[in-house]
Amino acid sequence: MSTVGAGIPEPPREEPNSAWLSVSELDWVRGRIPLLYVEAVPVRVDGLGVVTQVGVLLRANSQGEITRTLVSGRVMYGETIRDALFRHLEKDLGPMAFPQLPASPVPFQVAEYFPIPGLSAYVDERQHAVSLAYVVPVTGTFEPRQDALELTWVTPAEASSPAFHAELEGGRGTLLRAALASVGVLG
Amino acid sequence: MSTVGAGIPEPPREEPNSAWLSVSELDWVRGRIPLLYVEAVPVRVDGLGVVTQVGVLLRANSQGEITRTLVSGRVMYGETIRDALFRHLEKDLGPMAFPQLPASPVPFQVAEYFPIPGLSAYVDERQHAVSLAYVVPVTGTFEPRQDALELTWVTPAEASSPAFHAELEGGRGTLLRAALASVGVLG
Amino acid sequence: MSTVGAGIPEPPREEPNSAWLSVSELDWVRGRIPLLYVEAVPVRVDGLGVVTQVGVLLRANSQGEITRTLVSGRVMYGETIRDALFRHLEKDLGPMAFPQLPASPVPFQVAEYFPIPGLSAYVDERQHAVSLAYVVPVTGTFEPRQDALELTWVTPAEASSPAFHAELEGGRGTLLRAALASVGVLG
Amino acid sequence: MSTVGAGIPEPPREEPNSAWLSVSELDWVRGRIPLLYVEAVPVRVDGLGVVTQVGVLLRANSQGEITRTLVSGRVMYGETIRDALFRHLEKDLGPMAFPQLPASPVPFQVAEYFPIPGLSAYVDERQHAVSLAYVVPVTGTFEPRQDALELTWVTPAEASSPAFHAELEGGRGTLLRAALASVGVLG
Repeated sequence: MSTVGAGIPEPPREEPNSAWLSVSELDWVRGRIPLLYVEAVPVRVDGLGVVTQVGVLLRANSQGEITRTLVSGRVMYGETIRDALFRHLEKDLGPMAFPQLPASPVPFQVAEYFPIPGLSAYVDERQHAVSLAYVVPVTGTFEPRQDALELTWVTPAEASSPAFHAELEGGRGTLLRAALASVGVLG
Repeated sequence: MSTVGAGIPEPPREEPNSAWLSVSELDWVRGRIPLLYVEAVPVRVDGLGVVTQVGVLLRANSQGEITRTLVSGRVMYGETIRDALFRHLEKDLGPMAFPQLPASPVPFQVAEYFPIPGLSAYVDERQHAVSLAYVVPVTGTFEPRQDALELTWVTPAEASSPAFHAELEGGRGTLLRAALASVGVLG
Repeated sequence: MSTVGAGIPEPPREEPNSAWLSVSELDWVRGRIPLLYVEAVPVRVDGLGVVTQVGVLLRANSQGEITRTLVSGRVMYGETIRDALFRHLEKDLGPMAFPQLPASPVPFQVAEYFPIPGLSAYVDERQHAVSLAYVVPVTGTFEPRQDALELTWVTPAEASSPAFHAELEGGRGTLLRAALASVGVLG
Repeated sequence: MSTVGAGIPEPPREEPNSAWLSVSELDWVRGRIPLLYVEAVPVRVDGLGVVTQVGVLLRANSQGEITRTLVSGRVMYGETIRDALFRHLEKDLGPMAFPQLPASPVPFQVAEYFPIPGLSAYVDERQHAVSLAYVVPVTGTFEPRQDALELTWVTPAEASSPAFHAELEGGRGTLLRAALASVGVLG
């Protein structure tokens, strides 16, 4: 049985600070501590700041189903929220997306994911995660770096439809609606 | 005595829709209706969206004193808040300021200016004005178009000092502090 | 033809400061100045602050149709936003509603009503109005004081349905959705 | 050396879910995961919602110095943010404080505490903690349940002074200023 905190071989360093936690350590933590996440809804805006397009990711989940999701990921130890947000945007949209992180650190919504449905609108079977969610204008070009991901752009009207929300995993349809409402374009 | 709404010669057209109100009509309105304003705190941000500099205007008031102020102006009939915000930013910073208007139309603060001190933190001897205030990142260059104005850039730390706030007219020191707090850089 | 600002007989005083504007004066203003409004979505909350019910008004419009609407009204000259919000809540819900006005003066949304559709999600044939909208918990009992009004309470889930939104006048379905999203209960 | 995740005797149950982590486990986590906290600024409001008094805690720190601080505490596994906020308010203010938790789950500020100064305005030598901060009106009476704590009430003007902020530990003077600004009473 693995002991924690001593004598652990270094895992491969794929992400900043990920060396701090092995897979089994992360599993242990996931059952005992709420994990902090950031989520981003990438948008394109016009010259007056009005949101004209909304970016949503397509992903094949572990059952091989194609689902829609948002840019999201964990905040690492020692990492600022802005750094985490930038890192996950770059990971999912590529290095040329040129995200304009908001000047305000206050999220448009706080999404609480629980392993068991019913405690909130959000479900994550793996863990209790609390996610700070931001709308982030992007101005560049996109090349998702993870094989399973594709970025699609839709209008706010499309993104507002119930059918579209149903395709988002883990209750993120609710989060997307809140994002659209926060920028005044929920149809 | 002037009558309103008929037979009024066209005033010079300096601003969109300003033809709707002559000086005497505006005076009449100012004593009877709260007027809607927008205000902007122009800022420079770094690559992660952190505010690094804050723009404040220098202006000679009617007594010939130099005071500090923010970008501000009235919302005209038929004009959206975004259009008004863009128009006043262009008027005060020049056409090359490239303001990034916020995706969200919700202001960081609502400032209520009354002719008589004490009703709120804000005073405007001319009128009852309600101002929606925004922090606006700018990325371009600046050439204030009105003779009496100069734009100065200060750090968030300088902009946080009580001495600096005292130089802002009409209680706008309070508004500037709220702006700095809303973007997490009030020192 | 009426002259403005002098020699006008006192109109009946139904509202604070309403003496400042006669009907014809208000008509004149409505075509020339954006008017400032407040709107409120009254809600009931549980012991943890979660919204459990949403209050919506039923009103017969000028064509005799029954429509749904929100608490709303104009901000008068010299009146603070809080005073206006309280006054209109009392007018529409009665004196025993015990509204808990928010500690923050920042609205959850700014709704821009234009006489012509298409400029925004909101339409008001009479005027250009800019409305600061707030979610307001109420804890008392209700007796709408205006004959044509009835207050109905619905769950957040009911209030989230597209069918429900379609019954709200002037685009206020969009505003109600934004209200629900701002308090995390948009279904 | 203790192993984690198996064979651990039950610790005393002082707080909901605290059984999940022993002291040594929490120490281990504190060096590897950002911990999620909530913080609250208790306030008294008048009938229109204007903040009239601000509650600050006095505490003796481990060096025996008296410092000022805010209501704060960790979010436990499986606990909602509202539950955590209520629990910590009750712990620090007593069961009769009657806090009115905000209808909106969006904090007025997100405070990032790092063990090393300079990464943000906030420092916590023990850990990397991310705190969601709320202004919470309270209407009851107070009896702090922990021996070392006393609750003092000050006016917004007093709470706005630099001298007062300097007495708050870990950078919470900055957080208190942001709280005051968010409710429009930062002097």
